[in-house]
Amino acid sequence: MYYDQQEKPANDARNRVRRHPERGHYDRETIESILDAGFVGHLAFVADEQPYVLPMLYVRQDEEIFLHGAPRGRLMSTIAQGAHLCFTVTHIDGLVMARSVFHHSVNFRSVVVLGEARAVREREAKLSAMEALVEHIVPGRTAEARGPNDTELKATEIVALTISEASAKVRTGGPVDTGADVELPVWAGYVPLRVVAGVPVPDAGCELAVPAYVGSLYPA
Amino acid sequence: MYYDQQEKPANDARNRVRRHPERGHYDRETIESILDAGFVGHLAFVADEQPYVLPMLYVRQDEEIFLHGAPRGRLMSTIAQGAHLCFTVTHIDGLVMARSVFHHSVNFRSVVVLGEARAVREREAKLSAMEALVEHIVPGRTAEARGPNDTELKATEIVALTISEASAKVRTGGPVDTGADVELPVWAGYVPLRVVAGVPVPDAGCELAVPAYVGSLYPA
Repeated sequence: MYYDQQEKPANDARNRVRRHPERGHYDRETIESILDAGFVGHLAFVADEQPYVLPMLYVRQDEEIFLHGAPRGRLMSTIAQGAHLCFTVTHIDGLVMARSVFHHSVNFRSVVVLGEARAVREREAKLSAMEALVEHIVPGRTAEARGPNDTELKATEIVALTISEASAKVRTGGPVDTGADVELPVWAGYVPLRVVAGVPVPDAGCELAVPAYVGSLYPA
Repeated sequence: MYYDQQEKPANDARNRVRRHPERGHYDRETIESILDAGFVGHLAFVADEQPYVLPMLYVRQDEEIFLHGAPRGRLMSTIAQGAHLCFTVTHIDGLVMARSVFHHSVNFRSVVVLGEARAVREREAKLSAMEALVEHIVPGRTAEARGPNDTELKATEIVALTISEASAKVRTGGPVDTGADVELPVWAGYVPLRVVAGVPVPDAGCELAVPAYVGSLYPA
């Protein structure tokens, strides 16, 4: 379990960060903070020897990542059958410009999770996961929106991916030029990037005021 | 080749959009515009029956996607050996809030590419790909930064992923509530999301003015 991984994994471990190992992190706090800072991850699975990777909304709770989809689809069927999965979350934090093309980079935080998933079939657990997902993406929303009814619960497949192995990789700060490059008359530094929200667009026929929890999402 | 796919693929095609098929697109213009709007994708490959998915910088040129990495690593070795690959690019454009929890969604544009890659070993082709990558992420940068030397070229593995099958999936607009939900006194609509740049942070010792091509990146 990754929660016990306070130290670096063995050289041949599947979750070891191999390229730029100094950027690897394996502690629970770093991994959870990166997972919790996002709501879209990329899930990879294998079907007929072909890997597929699809964007998925998610929420983490304890040692599990909850995903949802349509019942009886290829994706959810594959997942629920215990297939080996990989789920990766990436935040791009900045563009790093070195004096040399070679040392250009990006600042980022990413987590790679390896594990298997189980279908969540019990009514209360499904309801809890659906509401947790919405609440994770828009905190405060579930107090206002109508909760799922039985038909909607049946039309939603929820799976829980157990975080059995995980690693984080983080790059921060400016460029690393070397040798004589440092003296070159080339602007060098980094440009922070972040996600911001635009003005909320009400649905046709909705004349209610924009709730505070909507207006405060991703402030500029 | 996806460039000939102006029509929807067959029901059993690997690149058919199965969930919400009305959101699927298979034409060259849509696929290329989504790929060209980003610079980070998620590459999936299989090793010992385990799928892995890692974030990768990329640039598209014609029918190929160029990726780079360190030589002799697991990733680049696997790729260059002709493994089946999947490369997915996702842009999150907004949060969609319906009156019901069930109909919450996100606006997005994504492309899923299936294909195999080849190593790019020829000097001029490697140089061209490295510069194209930097120029794609920061247009104007390669006119100023020092280009790669032979040592740096040898320390960079470039692979070209041929886009042999691809599909795009796009959701836009507001929520789709149904029936009596439309009358509920719940705010509904969507919140656009976009990436913006913060103030450029010069490297230690760099006192040059911020170039115009840096200052114009991702304006707020």
